[in-house]
Amino acid sequence: MINIGIIGYGYWGPNLVRNFFAAKDCCVRCVADARSDRLEQLGKVFPGITGLQDADGIIRDPEIDAVVIATPVFTHFSLAKEAILQGKHVLIEKPMTSSLIEAEILLNLAEQKNVLLMVDHTFLYTGAVEKMKQLVESRELGNIKYLDSTRINLGLFQSDVNVLWDLAPHDISILNYIINERPYSVNATGVTHTHNAIENIAYLTVNYSSGFIAHFNCSWTSPVKVRMMLIGGDQKMILYNDLEPTEKVKIYDTGYHHKTDEEKKRILVDYRTGDIHVPKLNTSEALLGMANDFISSITESKDPRSSAQLGLNVVQILEASSKSIKQNGREVKLESVNAHIQHIDQTVLSF
Amino acid sequence: MINIGIIGYGYWGPNLVRNFFAAKDCCVRCVADARSDRLEQLGKVFPGITGLQDADGIIRDPEIDAVVIATPVFTHFSLAKEAILQGKHVLIEKPMTSSLIEAEILLNLAEQKNVLLMVDHTFLYTGAVEKMKQLVESRELGNIKYLDSTRINLGLFQSDVNVLWDLAPHDISILNYIINERPYSVNATGVTHTHNAIENIAYLTVNYSSGFIAHFNCSWTSPVKVRMMLIGGDQKMILYNDLEPTEKVKIYDTGYHHKTDEEKKRILVDYRTGDIHVPKLNTSEALLGMANDFISSITESKDPRSSAQLGLNVVQILEASSKSIKQNGREVKLESVNAHIQHIDQTVLSF
Amino acid sequence: MINIGIIGYGYWGPNLVRNFFAAKDCCVRCVADARSDRLEQLGKVFPGITGLQDADGIIRDPEIDAVVIATPVFTHFSLAKEAILQGKHVLIEKPMTSSLIEAEILLNLAEQKNVLLMVDHTFLYTGAVEKMKQLVESRELGNIKYLDSTRINLGLFQSDVNVLWDLAPHDISILNYIINERPYSVNATGVTHTHNAIENIAYLTVNYSSGFIAHFNCSWTSPVKVRMMLIGGDQKMILYNDLEPTEKVKIYDTGYHHKTDEEKKRILVDYRTGDIHVPKLNTSEALLGMANDFISSITESKDPRSSAQLGLNVVQILEASSKSIKQNGREVKLESVNAHIQHIDQTVLSF
Amino acid sequence: MINIGIIGYGYWGPNLVRNFFAAKDCCVRCVADARSDRLEQLGKVFPGITGLQDADGIIRDPEIDAVVIATPVFTHFSLAKEAILQGKHVLIEKPMTSSLIEAEILLNLAEQKNVLLMVDHTFLYTGAVEKMKQLVESRELGNIKYLDSTRINLGLFQSDVNVLWDLAPHDISILNYIINERPYSVNATGVTHTHNAIENIAYLTVNYSSGFIAHFNCSWTSPVKVRMMLIGGDQKMILYNDLEPTEKVKIYDTGYHHKTDEEKKRILVDYRTGDIHVPKLNTSEALLGMANDFISSITESKDPRSSAQLGLNVVQILEASSKSIKQNGREVKLESVNAHIQHIDQTVLSF
Repeated sequence: MINIGIIGYGYWGPNLVRNFFAAKDCCVRCVADARSDRLEQLGKVFPGITGLQDADGIIRDPEIDAVVIATPVFTHFSLAKEAILQGKHVLIEKPMTSSLIEAEILLNLAEQKNVLLMVDHTFLYTGAVEKMKQLVESRELGNIKYLDSTRINLGLFQSDVNVLWDLAPHDISILNYIINERPYSVNATGVTHTHNAIENIAYLTVNYSSGFIAHFNCSWTSPVKVRMMLIGGDQKMILYNDLEPTEKVKIYDTGYHHKTDEEKKRILVDYRTGDIHVPKLNTSEALLGMANDFISSITESKDPRSSAQLGLNVVQILEASSKSIKQNGREVKLESVNAHIQHIDQTVLSF
Repeated sequence: MINIGIIGYGYWGPNLVRNFFAAKDCCVRCVADARSDRLEQLGKVFPGITGLQDADGIIRDPEIDAVVIATPVFTHFSLAKEAILQGKHVLIEKPMTSSLIEAEILLNLAEQKNVLLMVDHTFLYTGAVEKMKQLVESRELGNIKYLDSTRINLGLFQSDVNVLWDLAPHDISILNYIINERPYSVNATGVTHTHNAIENIAYLTVNYSSGFIAHFNCSWTSPVKVRMMLIGGDQKMILYNDLEPTEKVKIYDTGYHHKTDEEKKRILVDYRTGDIHVPKLNTSEALLGMANDFISSITESKDPRSSAQLGLNVVQILEASSKSIKQNGREVKLESVNAHIQHIDQTVLSF
Repeated sequence: MINIGIIGYGYWGPNLVRNFFAAKDCCVRCVADARSDRLEQLGKVFPGITGLQDADGIIRDPEIDAVVIATPVFTHFSLAKEAILQGKHVLIEKPMTSSLIEAEILLNLAEQKNVLLMVDHTFLYTGAVEKMKQLVESRELGNIKYLDSTRINLGLFQSDVNVLWDLAPHDISILNYIINERPYSVNATGVTHTHNAIENIAYLTVNYSSGFIAHFNCSWTSPVKVRMMLIGGDQKMILYNDLEPTEKVKIYDTGYHHKTDEEKKRILVDYRTGDIHVPKLNTSEALLGMANDFISSITESKDPRSSAQLGLNVVQILEASSKSIKQNGREVKLESVNAHIQHIDQTVLSF
Repeated sequence: MINIGIIGYGYWGPNLVRNFFAAKDCCVRCVADARSDRLEQLGKVFPGITGLQDADGIIRDPEIDAVVIATPVFTHFSLAKEAILQGKHVLIEKPMTSSLIEAEILLNLAEQKNVLLMVDHTFLYTGAVEKMKQLVESRELGNIKYLDSTRINLGLFQSDVNVLWDLAPHDISILNYIINERPYSVNATGVTHTHNAIENIAYLTVNYSSGFIAHFNCSWTSPVKVRMMLIGGDQKMILYNDLEPTEKVKIYDTGYHHKTDEEKKRILVDYRTGDIHVPKLNTSEALLGMANDFISSITESKDPRSSAQLGLNVVQILEASSKSIKQNGREVKLESVNAHIQHIDQTVLSF
């Protein structure tokens, strides 16, 4: 039985409490939030859970085995660092941290302390992503050529992170989960329509040396909600529309291959369009799957699906995208993270 | 009565013949195409029109007043130049030319020769674009903040131009038509999945000093056809879905404005969502409207809607996008075209 | 403060408990259900509410002011009758009763006992129906000519009532709410694909002397879920698609009128198609609106929107539809209910 | 080479001319229409075809082998009768005739004269219907339980036939083509919103002794166009949406079966929902397929897909539906046509 403390009871916190309440082999002991009205709300729905105003009460509680962090992004690092130093297993809301260096430090620390560090990329636990992963791995799509994602709606303008840090983690986590190749660079452009220099519309291209390409279109200012991803292989292609109630994943028996016309030295491309298949998907709640993965990864000492490494890779792309936007869309290379990690001075752990 | 000769009877040519046949105050005299099978086809459907294998027979025919050029892009410049030098009015298929300098030369020449030069950006004559132009001009949308366009499908891989030169002219012409501000730079990324270095997927951002931004997503390798454009103002927003049979343009009474919270120094954004309005659109055939505009611009000596200047601006953005892709997405500034035109050496006209 | 007891904690009961819990000026005291597992579930979620296995414990509790009946249809009459005789206000799930005579008796009894009798036709409290009622009443649609409803899906085959009694009450209640004219007859056809003579597909036409017509298509065996209603006036028409997340009600500025061509003695019909308007709808929870209407109708002695009379009219149409199906689709007249009510022998109250 | 004459050059005639022009082994010699403006139009597009104002010129022309009748319904019988008596093969537009007796007489006559009689039910030649026929015949759907069709739009009010005679022939021909069982009765209801007693909204149920049921919803007064058909088997079900550009036929791996709970004497129904499959369809033009079937059925003396018998069966259902509407929805039995045909007095052939 893993005893859990949850820090943050804002937008996402109640969902985490509800699902860890329903998860196996764990018990939600306490929830911390600075706002008393939220703790009052907690008391009404879950009278058996202790409400605390200070996160320290969770982090330093010797009865707590695992800490779940659902606070604003800029606080993730220091809360997670403290919890790991106290020997707690830690689950962090996406995006994992505000910078790559912070993510690297947390991974290092967790390894040293031998605790589980995991990031809540909930989408990895949906039936749709599970099915797409399986289609890519079984090579049913052939060679994967591109991933194109649009995630736009009239959304809350965040005051601390831009629209890519807010919306793209979902799609980048899916990208990292189903594509094994590591990207080598990103380009990003964007614009802010307020005076705070935080982009509310942004576009991100992720480049790969194999010729695979990924593109993300994110906006808080669309009149319509769109949640659409295309994944194209040379054998088959996928349309993933998360707003479809039942037909979320459509597999198109559509492909193309090219050859060189020796005589005219021209490239000839052959197309094929065929049937469409809409597989029945697992419809169990993704967040519950994530919660169970966290708990069982602790109890069975296994790697979770939504691992810290995957979370770090997401942060790396986000950080590079911010650099690219600041440099007017210039290509930003993604250094090898393993090389990078060597440079972390041990003293950095004290900040 | 304007006598017309049409050069090129491939994919688009028959549509041009049919619509100039139906247009007012003009007469299609001859059609030129190097392929005899196409001329045979012409003869069956339009026995009264002369078929020629050589474009020169049209360009040098003194009875021809106006020449319509519907050939591959790389031939546009030399055919148009010859026709203008022969004193013909000229209509060129989009994109106007393969380079900005060619477009500039044609504009200069047409002015010298006092003939009409026009580009067939057919979309400008659709009821949908007409309505959107009117909504923007009447300021019903408020201040326009962004335009976001997706034009993807499983399309013919062109062997001479990339996917942006093939598909984006439609959307860039709409952009240029309804937005008065001139852009100052572009960023573009893309990828080719063949060996001919011609991108089949590409993304283009067009930057404006006012903070307005435009983005274009073009692909020949999507399993689904998408023709979707969002235009966002701070008062209202438009969703333009060209595949909708009747509800192509939806106007969302959705907007936002921001203010600074003086106390906390934070930006506060207020949203508003409201009714949706779907206007009835003019459904007359766009290509016929274009043909009539060409003829009446000649007979009435007026500026056509789809002017050579607009066509040149489209080519300028396309050319810059190609540069940006070659330079890995680097921002490419759009020089003032008027400044540029000074540099054209008169000798260039002989190439 | 109205003290409430709820009988039945199956499919719908928990929704009723949750909403009466949230409603104003009332308190859910106890819930009765014969199944102990359901009462256990109740205890977990609402530890403050008493669970009882016997409905009598609610009906005869002097502290209870109002009884909510959410049990199988065939039990509605006897439970409601007992509750009314005990002087309780009564809310019954739809459909109100299994027969018209039962509904008439309950109305009579409630009047004698001076208690409120109401039926839970939840849809009357949705923003969509509210808007449609308003459009019809303001005569914006002109003269209403037809209502056509399709409510089909792969649904649970009920073992006590056929598909019309199960699904059509929603649509018939909307019909009765927004159309003032009383129907004079019905025709219905249907089929059963099991051996229990309970139709799983059925079609109902409701006839009106003005020429207005209503039609209902109900099925438990459709592979797709459809919730679509058309309401046609001669000035405008409505498409109500309850599955649309945001655009549930579309108003078409489409109409027609006819005149007689005096010369040729033919009917000429003029059409008009125009803009489409999608109004923003009230999105507050319908069931909470219903609960608040029940409570405020008690405390303010007013008529509720979803009145017993409306519920009775729904049952009258359903009963006639069953007769018509049994008689192979023959037209069944709807007698005036007021005339009918005279025939109820006082002794009937004892059954 | 079959020489063809086409009578009627109104709405459908030009499509017939164009397709017989493109069909194999035949030649369109002449077209008859009383209106000179239509013949003028014909002359422009098909200068090689003779235009005639009188149908007799076709029917009595010894060079004509086959006559195509595309005139108003009430003229079909007499034109077809004359043509058959002249020894011509005959193709009639749907619906075949205005009454069952007329259809029977034509079938009899054609048999006596040994000529081909065929009805143009174009939908039978679409890729969608072909696929559905094949799915039903291969028993992939299991036992077919129902067919439910909606064909509504804002349509031209016909002045001679009601909305069922105008729109339902398409769907009834599909029903007759893919379901082998013969129906035993129909019920129909409808309403007219003009003063000419011609229904503009009507509903038709077709009853079968096996428990299979078919239902048709037709309207000329819907603000939206719907072309939707559901075909349900106990193994799989089909959704056929003719307005979908590419996904017209969707096959749902959805079914149900029932058993009797011996203990409780209740019917238990088991459901199954699964994947959805969207087959690629043959997209060749249906009308050309129909034209080729007519010609090859003549030259090869084979039975066409859209046979006179099928056309007669459609008329039988339509005629019964009109009777049912007039009798307020009463069930109208469909007599065995073979029995019926005995009663035709030979003298009837003279009317």
